[in-house]
Amino acid sequence: MSGWIAVAGLGPGADALVTPEVTEALAQATDVIGYIPYVARVAAREGLTLHPSDNRVEMDRARLALRLAAEGRRVIVVSSGDPGVFAMASALFEALGPDADPEIRILPGITAMLAAAARAGAPLGHDFCAINLSDNLKPFALIEHRLRHAARGDFAMAFYNPRSASRPEGFARVLEILREECAPQRLMIFARAVTTPDERLTVVTLNEALPEMADMRTVVLVGNAATRRVGRWVYTPRSAEAV
Amino acid sequence: MSGWIAVAGLGPGADALVTPEVTEALAQATDVIGYIPYVARVAAREGLTLHPSDNRVEMDRARLALRLAAEGRRVIVVSSGDPGVFAMASALFEALGPDADPEIRILPGITAMLAAAARAGAPLGHDFCAINLSDNLKPFALIEHRLRHAARGDFAMAFYNPRSASRPEGFARVLEILREECAPQRLMIFARAVTTPDERLTVVTLNEALPEMADMRTVVLVGNAATRRVGRWVYTPRSAEAV
Repeated sequence: MSGWIAVAGLGPGADALVTPEVTEALAQATDVIGYIPYVARVAAREGLTLHPSDNRVEMDRARLALRLAAEGRRVIVVSSGDPGVFAMASALFEALGPDADPEIRILPGITAMLAAAARAGAPLGHDFCAINLSDNLKPFALIEHRLRHAARGDFAMAFYNPRSASRPEGFARVLEILREECAPQRLMIFARAVTTPDERLTVVTLNEALPEMADMRTVVLVGNAATRRVGRWVYTPRSAEAV
Repeated sequence: MSGWIAVAGLGPGADALVTPEVTEALAQATDVIGYIPYVARVAAREGLTLHPSDNRVEMDRARLALRLAAEGRRVIVVSSGDPGVFAMASALFEALGPDADPEIRILPGITAMLAAAARAGAPLGHDFCAINLSDNLKPFALIEHRLRHAARGDFAMAFYNPRSASRPEGFARVLEILREECAPQRLMIFARAVTTPDERLTVVTLNEALPEMADMRTVVLVGNAATRRVGRWVYTPRSAEAV
């Protein structure tokens, strides 16, 4: 049997958000590759080899997947959320040679910002941006540039990887930039570990937001200028006025 | 038994992309409300009343859902894709009175842009924007304003509702704006009816793009300045340079 690679999104955490497509692919796989906590979500079974690895070795994982598939194995590279959103799909294509043509499928998943938005109401119900705040692979100047354009375009925003132990100051600077661009009453949602037992949702205004509200398990949502509350919900109306 | 409302995302089309959470909620429902082609995706059964309705009556649907739930019924409002992305979740909260507090859940789904991105490779693998190109509920000037900010921020982009029979000229203007802001070799993907039997994926450069490549069943993806091809795939690298 010839080998293949599927880059699969496991969703934000709950088993009820794993698509049947991903479940079926996992049942056929011989090898699962990924970041330790994501591989830990896959049940061990006879005939399945798990290859957990630490953070920041995305290219090693991609090359391992390509090598195993070339040997005829059926390989799943797991991401949390969706594999195409700040996850392993791009890394696999970066590692792919121009003349190689292994069988590859990208299997979408529920990405963190949409799971978080669903818990809060509908804060991304109008035009929005997704921005990765990690500066591992891009300069902070580009993050600032994009933040300002997102704010001036009055997009709602979702921030992935807002803050880590190795770069605690970046998110404080992000909040300063938002305060320069947006009104103090702008609504924000800090959604931590959504759909897991550790889930915690915090809704604040921009002037109440603190850097410590975010960590690497948090996705941060920022409404647009029209985002409002009704009861315990936060939503962005479908209509918008001219700028 | 008291009533409830779930606003559920059915994903882009394939049954294998409907989450178990949504499948379970549908099994418990007494009523399903939504746009005709989405309700048609729900299997009829004893005890389930289907309420299909035409386009542009979102507020009527939301009020019907609230009324039925108040009568003790278990109501699902269905959207394609994700209910929080240009879909029914915002409409429900718009219809919700400030003092009403029915049991509401928003059940996320695989949104069209991520299903389309997965088919193409990983074109949204870096920061990106989602923009609804319909000017039913917002002026075209706001669409233009956001397009220019998205382009100047070098975001990848996903366009929902790019073109309909009632407004054929808007998308031609969108392409003109993109040509003013981006290089002619910028990669674009026209993804029609992704994961259905009618699926069609077309990859072109911005200078090759034609308005007729889009219709209401198409989601259009635009790469950022670094988006490239490898083999038959399109992806955006994870690294980015300063602007």
